[in-house]
Parts: sequence; C-alpha cells; structure tokens
Amino acid sequence: MLLPFAVSVIYNEPQGVPFLGVALICILLGTLIVIKKPKNMNFFAREGFAVTSLSWIMLSVFGCLPFVINGDIPNFTDALFETVSGFTTTGASILDDIESLSRASLFWRSFTHWLGGMGVLVFLLALIPMTGGSHMHIMKAESPGPSVDKLLPKVRHTAFVLYAIYFALTVLEFAFLVYAGMPIFDAVTTAAGTAGTGGFGIKSDSMAGYSAAIQWIVAVFMMLFGMNFGFYFLLIRRSFKAAFSYEEIRNYVLIIIAACVFIMLSVISRGCLADMSFAEKLRHTFFQVTSIMTTTGFSTIDYDNLWPQTANLILVALMFVGACAGSTGGGIKVSRVSILFKTVKKEMTLFFHPQRVVLIKNEHKPIAHETIRSTNVFIMAYIFTFVVSVLLVSIDNFDFTTTFTAVAATINNIGPGMSMAGPTESFSAFTYFSKYVMIFDMLAGRLELYPMLILITPEFWRSIFCPNRGIRIYR
Amino acid sequence: MLLPFAVSVIYNEPQGVPFLGVALICILLGTLIVIKKPKNMNFFAREGFAVTSLSWIMLSVFGCLPFVINGDIPNFTDALFETVSGFTTTGASILDDIESLSRASLFWRSFTHWLGGMGVLVFLLALIPMTGGSHMHIMKAESPGPSVDKLLPKVRHTAFVLYAIYFALTVLEFAFLVYAGMPIFDAVTTAAGTAGTGGFGIKSDSMAGYSAAIQWIVAVFMMLFGMNFGFYFLLIRRSFKAAFSYEEIRNYVLIIIAACVFIMLSVISRGCLADMSFAEKLRHTFFQVTSIMTTTGFSTIDYDNLWPQTANLILVALMFVGACAGSTGGGIKVSRVSILFKTVKKEMTLFFHPQRVVLIKNEHKPIAHETIRSTNVFIMAYIFTFVVSVLLVSIDNFDFTTTFTAVAATINNIGPGMSMAGPTESFSAFTYFSKYVMIFDMLAGRLELYPMLILITPEFWRSIFCPNRGIRIYR
Repeated sequence: MLLPFAVSVIYNEPQGVPFLGVALICILLGTLIVIKKPKNMNFFAREGFAVTSLSWIMLSVFGCLPFVINGDIPNFTDALFETVSGFTTTGASILDDIESLSRASLFWRSFTHWLGGMGVLVFLLALIPMTGGSHMHIMKAESPGPSVDKLLPKVRHTAFVLYAIYFALTVLEFAFLVYAGMPIFDAVTTAAGTAGTGGFGIKSDSMAGYSAAIQWIVAVFMMLFGMNFGFYFLLIRRSFKAAFSYEEIRNYVLIIIAACVFIMLSVISRGCLADMSFAEKLRHTFFQVTSIMTTTGFSTIDYDNLWPQTANLILVALMFVGACAGSTGGGIKVSRVSILFKTVKKEMTLFFHPQRVVLIKNEHKPIAHETIRSTNVFIMAYIFTFVVSVLLVSIDNFDFTTTFTAVAATINNIGPGMSMAGPTESFSAFTYFSKYVMIFDMLAGRLELYPMLILITPEFWRSIFCPNRGIRIYR
Repeated sequence: MLLPFAVSVIYNEPQGVPFLGVALICILLGTLIVIKKPKNMNFFAREGFAVTSLSWIMLSVFGCLPFVINGDIPNFTDALFETVSGFTTTGASILDDIESLSRASLFWRSFTHWLGGMGVLVFLLALIPMTGGSHMHIMKAESPGPSVDKLLPKVRHTAFVLYAIYFALTVLEFAFLVYAGMPIFDAVTTAAGTAGTGGFGIKSDSMAGYSAAIQWIVAVFMMLFGMNFGFYFLLIRRSFKAAFSYEEIRNYVLIIIAACVFIMLSVISRGCLADMSFAEKLRHTFFQVTSIMTTTGFSTIDYDNLWPQTANLILVALMFVGACAGSTGGGIKVSRVSILFKTVKKEMTLFFHPQRVVLIKNEHKPIAHETIRSTNVFIMAYIFTFVVSVLLVSIDNFDFTTTFTAVAATINNIGPGMSMAGPTESFSAFTYFSKYVMIFDMLAGRLELYPMLILITPEFWRSIFCPNRGIRIYR
C-alpha cells in the first residue's frame, strides 16, 4: 500500500493518504499478531487450507479499506468485490466510470492483480507438486504434516526462481509497451494486470483505445503468462527438448490456434465486421482468445454484440478450460481437461480392445489412478459450486446469459462475461447478495475450490469451536 | 403401424393408408433378413452396442416414412426428427400447427413414445444390472460374451414383469383420464406419451387446455413413470420395507419436493402470476417439475415467459438430473448424481478425518471403485458431447439460451427448452444441420451415449471394413 501512496505523491492526489493510513494499521496489527509465537509450529493440510482461505479474505478486507475511505468506491461491498476481483486476478469490476478514479486507486487495483498472481505462484509451489492434476495429494498428505521449518528452504529457493521469472516477464512487457508508445502509468498498470492474468484496465473501454502494436504486445504476453511456469524453468535450465515436448504447453498452444481458426471462420462466414481488414479481425480474435483462455479478461472489441453466437460460445467454452496449471491463470486448467479427455478416450478404446491394458499418460508419464480420481472429483465439486452459484445469482432475475456467464466469469477468474455482464458493461447492477456469492466464487476459483469449500462445512467450524474433540479424533 | 392404420379406419382418414404400406414393406424386409441364420450366434458387447444404435436409427427411418408419404410432415429431415424425438421419448417437435395433423399421425407420434419407453426397458434389463450407475460393467464383460440363447430365458421372465407393470400403469392412467372427462383419443395419446416420458401432445398448447383434475392426474403419473421400476418390483414382491428405503426413489421424491418449494418461493416472492390462486400456482409448479425432471416435457404454462429466472434455472438444472435409472425417463439419472455428490462429500470428509476409511454407499451397499470411476467417465463423455453439440448448433446463430436449452432438452430427452425452443415454440426454425446434430443427441441421450459415440470412432468402422484384422486382435 506504500506504492499507491507513492503514486499519489507523484500525481499530487489527496486520495492517496488512506493508503498510508491503512498500511500503518496493517503494520501495527501484523506486529501484534506475530509477537506471541505459538507453541506448536506444525500444521496439517486442514489448517493450511483454512489459513489460506482466511488470509485471502482478510487481505481483501484490508485491501478494500482505502477505496472506501478515500471515496473512490464508497460502498463497502462494492469495494470488497473490486478488491477480491483484484487479488484473485479476476478483473470483474463494479465500476461504471473507471476514468473518474484517482491514480492511486487505479494503481492499487492493477497492483492487486500483480500481487494476487504472485500469491498464486507461492500457493502452487508450496502445496502442489508441479505435475498438474494431482492437487488432491495434499489432502492425503496430512497425517504427520510437514513442519513449517522443514518445508521453507526448498520453497524459498523455488519461489525465488519463480518470482524472478514473473518479475522479468513483467518488466519485459512494460518495456515493450513503453517502446510501442504507451504512457508510463498505463504501461505499469497494464503490465501488472497482464502478469497476474487479471484484466483490470484503467479505461472503460479496456484495451480498445490503444494502438494495434500495443494490443499485439498485450495479447502475446497474456499468452506467455498463461503458460505453465515449469516451461520457463526448463528453458532456464536449457532443457530445450523437454521444454518443447511439454504436453500441457503444446495442448495450450493448439487450443489457442484452433479457437482462433474457428472464430475467424465463424466471423468471416457470417459477414460480421465487414468493414475490418483480415489483419484487424485476426488481431481482435487472437486478443480475445488469449484474454479469455488465460482468464485475463482485457478486451479490444465488443465481441458480445459484434461476433456471431458460435464465436461467443467458443469463448464461453474457453472460459472453463482456462490456462495451464502452474500459471497465474484460472479455470479448470488445460492439463485437467486433457486428463479427462483421455479417460473418455480410454473407455472408448476398451470397447474394441477389451483385453488391452490402456495406460493414460500425461507429460509422457503414466498417471496414477489417484490423480484421475481426484481430477474427476475436482470437476464434480466445480460443477456443483457452479450450479449452486448460478441458482443463487438467478434470484436477481437477470436473463440466462447474464447469470450463466457472470458466474462463469467470476468462478474462472476471467472478468467480463456476456450480455449484462459483457465487456462493455459492469457488475454494478447485481444485488449485494449476488455480489457476495460471486466474491465467494472468485476466491473458490482462485484457490482451487477446497480451501473455500471447507469453510462451509459444519465439520470445519466444529473443529474450531470444539478443538479437543477434534484432536481426540485426529491423533 | 397397423394400430395407426386402424385408427385411420375408425376416423375414416385417407392418411392412414401409408401406415399399412410401410408396415407391409417392414414385414417383407424383416422376413428376408431373418431367413438366413448367421453361423455364429454369439455376440460381444461391441456388437451389442452397434446393433442397438443401428436398430434405433433404422427404426426411426422406417417410422418416419408414413409422415412423409401421407403429407403430414412432407420433409424427410423434419419427419425423421419428429420420429427420433418420438422413439427416444424426447417430445421435441418441429410442428408449428399440431392440430392440422391426421388422427392416424397423431396417434403414431404418441405411440412411438410408448414403444420407445418399452424399448428402453428391454435395453435396460437386457444389458444393465438394475443397481444404477454401474452401467459400464457391460463393456468389461465382453470377453467370452454371453450367448444369446443363454441370456434369453432370464430376460424374457424379467421383461414380462416389466412390461406388465408398464402396461398396467398406462391403462390405469388412461382410465383415470377418461374418468376425469378427457376424450378417449386424447386419453390414449396422453397416457402413451406419459408412459414413455415422451411429451408429444396432440394440441399446440400441450396440456394447458385441459381441466385441473386432468393436469393433476398427468403430473402424478409422470412422477410414477420416472421412478425406478425396481421399486415396483419390490412392491409386487411385497418387500415394502425394502421398497420404501429405496434410496434413489427417496432422493427422487426429495428433489421434486425441494424443487417445488423453491420454485413456489421464487414465483410468489417475485409476485409473478398474481392473478392465480395458491393452488393453481402449486399445480403448475408440480406439473412442470415432474414434467421436466422425468424428461417428459408436457407443459401447462408458458414458464419460459411467466416464471422468474430462478424458477426457470431450477428447471434447467432438473433437465440434467433427469429421472431414476431403470425408468423410461432420460437425463443423467438421480442415482448417478447422488453417487457423484457422495464422492465430493467423501473428499471433504477426508480433510477432517484423513485416517478414516470412508466407504461410499449406494442403496445401503458399498459402491465398487469401478462404479464410481465409470460414473465419472460417463459424466465427462456427457459433458464433451453436450459442449460439442452446443457449438455445432450455435452455427445457426440463435441466442445463447435457445442454443443451450435446445441441446439440453434433446440430449436429456425432454422436449421443450427455453426462449426460441420454449414450451410455446417448436424446433422448426433450426437448420437441417442442427436438426441432425440434435437427432444424434436424442439417440445418444436415450441409449446412454456409448452406443452412439462408438459410431463416430474410426476404430468402429475399421472393425467393420477390416473384420479379419479385428478378429485377430479380439480373440
């Protein structure tokens, strides 16, 4: 929060003062909390999940206070929605007039994306093996629980490399954008929003007003930030052969190319955007495909109104596929989708070769049954969360497209949906109730469901309020 | 086809003659086919699936010929769509003016539902154990393959009891309807359409024009036909305790009650249908819930335009849940949904009791891992089929709601969807291409996906055109 305060000093804005104030409060509270060291430093996966979800909620509550105090977003729920949307790198906004915000607030919005993207990386590497899809192992691993001391050194090392890549790519994009003629402030916020695959712009028309060169640069960097960071690891280690046979990366690129081809076919065959050249159509197509698939959510064109249905539905399908595992992007993830696809293919093969032993491979290694099972269960939990959220948001009585895509855009951490939640609209029309449902969805989508879902189980609250009973059962 | 011909004789209609003609052609062709007995009478699951899907396609092609010849539905694709919709007990119609059809054709439409529902029962009991959810076992069971002779006696016995129940319930509904004052012809077609959970009405406004008593009777019988026929088995065997602890039946009834409560709350709190009494609202709610959940598709009210979004989205969710396994209804099936729900719940429990052995039970018995896996794979195949179909139908460029619910209504064998595929509309506006996609979906939904899906695998066609190569691998 000291950074947005610094921004306000540069631009001589009074709206920056609350950032300093809240920063001081946070320092004070934080110091008080860590003074007393707990006796037992071990913690189990259950506590890990609870800590994760509660931290993100607390982070968002404190993060939204400056907006409320400086009057840029006076309503608490709206400010919380905006901040959760920022930290979870969703990019769904309740603001109808973005340009009226102070520079400090605009910077803070985009900077939450950058921090959120970073946080996801830590979360990923601290808890989840980089194989993608085997995310449920952590639950099994609870019993003796890794002690925090034992875990740290390795995490620190890996985290350093990941952050270096993340930082370097952000700076690189910033440099390209400035070189292409973007103002410094715009370039900083855009680079931060791209890096976290967030999608908050500082203009109401998102990226539509910038030059073609800038749009291409942003599109390419969205694609890069949606890749599995394991790929960059391999590049740094000069394992080029391994890097370019990375299955998830290849599927990811193939899906992007296929989506672009089909959207172009759809747009051209329907005669949409007849006044645009082929190159322009291609630019908007590539931009929207990478923006939606990486769950960033920037837009250069009002696809909701200007594209045919098929093109829009391809975008909706991409919303659910999402980016690579091990990236800052959200969604179900390319590796999970490909594992699911392979299980169905395996069943079909067994019709014809029932005696054959069919091994499902991922990244050239056989996948454990456990991974397949956990992937399946994840999808089910995902579908249930999605359906319940759609039903709850439907109480607002907006049309089917709005309700369906608003929830899809928040649970997958994208930002804009279609119809009244489309790229030229905002989420301001929803009621408080729906906003809280979507706040839950954004956090659930970002933290891969379980950390948020355990918060709504009675067992969780029982284990907090009756800890003794809990210990007797668990040890 | 002799029955619709008989109907035309009673009502003195010339449109009945083609039914007699096509019936004679079928007798001729059928006789020719069975003259030559094949040397090898064994067949494997693979052949079983192929025979099933190809028979249903052939059945529909011959079944639609009378419509084309007598001019009631002169277009072949439309007639095929209508007939597939009939046999698969979907009830989606391309007719804008149903009343203009001859009585013979109207009778044939409804009668295809009755036959289709019957066919599903055979299919269910011949190939699938009545446990629900373990449908994939059949694929595993290929190797020595049950010979047709060995299988028949048992199937014949079970089939007889099932048909007796089916027939008795149909007659019972017919009697109730006539008693409530419905004309004989209307009662016959309505009872046939309810029994097969089909949904073709003989009026353009479906059931809206009939009295409240008739609507209640139809609603209750829809509910009865959506129940697992294993329940009736138990009742006949006087195992009342077992019958009333039938888990799927209980979940099914609970879902219906819950859906009614929430729809009533939604309708009343929004002040919709303000001129209707509570009893009237309840009647329409109960009718639509049972109609959609059992995938019948009759309607008494234009819910698409008169109900609030939440109420409509509850119906959309019910479309996917569907009726009980072992009934004539379609959809994913209650038992599958409950198994999936339990797997997610199990994962959540393991967070808190990681050392505990959590058994998932269904119908008071632990479920095999194999069943859980196959249920998961089924859902994935289902989702992939659904998404691809939506993308293909979207080429018609109708709005999202129309495209989404039209595919949902056909793959789940319901009939009406929302918007342009709503209860007061028809499927006539779709292009031939979309109609063929939906014909595929109706068959896939009815035959539980795999028999249709193997038709689009290259391996299937290879095994037909290169049978020698096939035999070498399989034996």
